[in-house]
Amino acid sequence: MYNYKISLAYDGSKYLGWQVQSNQPLKTIQGKLENVLGKLFDEPIQVIASGRTDAGVHARMQVANFHTTTYKNPEEILHYLRQYLPQDIAITSLKDASERFHARYNCLTKRYGYYIDTNFFADPFSVRFAYHVPESLHLEKMEQAASHLLGTHDFKSFTSMKNKKKSTIKHIHSIDIQPTSCGIVIYYHGNGFLQHQVRIMTGTLLEVGLGHMEPEAILTILEGKSRALAGPTAPSHGLFLEEVLY
Amino acid sequence: MYNYKISLAYDGSKYLGWQVQSNQPLKTIQGKLENVLGKLFDEPIQVIASGRTDAGVHARMQVANFHTTTYKNPEEILHYLRQYLPQDIAITSLKDASERFHARYNCLTKRYGYYIDTNFFADPFSVRFAYHVPESLHLEKMEQAASHLLGTHDFKSFTSMKNKKKSTIKHIHSIDIQPTSCGIVIYYHGNGFLQHQVRIMTGTLLEVGLGHMEPEAILTILEGKSRALAGPTAPSHGLFLEEVLY
Repeated sequence: MYNYKISLAYDGSKYLGWQVQSNQPLKTIQGKLENVLGKLFDEPIQVIASGRTDAGVHARMQVANFHTTTYKNPEEILHYLRQYLPQDIAITSLKDASERFHARYNCLTKRYGYYIDTNFFADPFSVRFAYHVPESLHLEKMEQAASHLLGTHDFKSFTSMKNKKKSTIKHIHSIDIQPTSCGIVIYYHGNGFLQHQVRIMTGTLLEVGLGHMEPEAILTILEGKSRALAGPTAPSHGLFLEEVLY
Repeated sequence: MYNYKISLAYDGSKYLGWQVQSNQPLKTIQGKLENVLGKLFDEPIQVIASGRTDAGVHARMQVANFHTTTYKNPEEILHYLRQYLPQDIAITSLKDASERFHARYNCLTKRYGYYIDTNFFADPFSVRFAYHVPESLHLEKMEQAASHLLGTHDFKSFTSMKNKKKSTIKHIHSIDIQPTSCGIVIYYHGNGFLQHQVRIMTGTLLEVGLGHMEPEAILTILEGKSRALAGPTAPSHGLFLEEVLY
């Protein structure tokens, strides 16, 4: 068995997300990749990502791996993928990996970016890649609120995950709010994120930025352990998986 | 009569260009604006731009003006336009202008940017906004070639314009090649450009960058005064009108 490590970027606008849906595999990024690789290697290929991304979410850097029974040169694989993948999926690197490398189990931390366009008119070049909130946001209050999310917490209030057996305890290393050409981006770096966690944290930070909630409310929300206490789920098209670290 | 100066940005992907086409006015940026403004002011409005942009060409900053017989507050006009214009057209400023201001006649110089994505895989977030040339370009040679285009020249070889009465003499102040996240952008600053001039200059500079033509060939092309001597017309989707100066 051979193992390959692959890094890729994708515009998630047209997809149901990373993970194969049994009825519509070709509407997922995983399904597109498995389809093209399966044809090249002439065997069923399973592509394992660092984690799934939801419908409409983009990736500037997703990492995955896949096993094959025959060996092909990475350069040959790259040329084939460039020819047959759609233009909204780009492979940024493809390398031979050790047999033990597993894109999900070996992932240490991840960085996400959530893009918010605060212009009065939405920037026409960011419409698909940023959430349009044409308001002046109180950035210092958002930073204060974000500081309460740092460290290890039970993020039960910040997920729509229903599975009660799975732990909702996660660790956030940093949250950085940076200016962009048309607004701000909020970068989140952590050891892993629950379903919808980044989007619910963003929706809640926006409530603070808009003056609908005080920064200290974050403490009450964390303690309450109920999804109903946090802000709305920000839409998927503003979210980018930025980096996966090993 | 009242006169308004308007600055706007647009993603030209879905349009036949700036200028109204008699059979399909709503497939042009001018037509979209005139339609919405006409409804607001309840009179026919003509919007005069600094110059037309071709089908598929974008603008980060286009400038235009329009006259009305009744007066409305710029803020009211902006709110109405935001409500009724599609998301690929954004008004970045709208101000009262002196009666004599004319967006085309008063324009002093323009800046265009042509974006080239040189990654092996096209960047998924730039597919609509950059020309994909997955090759390593010889930038110093491109800069040498560009230097021969500076100053006042007869650019007859660099236009597809057929009108023999119109002068083809133009002045280029500067051509700057800058790196971007996925390749390069070539900025052109001049007192005005002929039809397809920026795209033909770009196609010719690319021939030099790819090693198909020597930088000195530019001199022969200028002297020859024939479109057949220059390189191909680079596609419209990589071109942005960046700035209009008064």
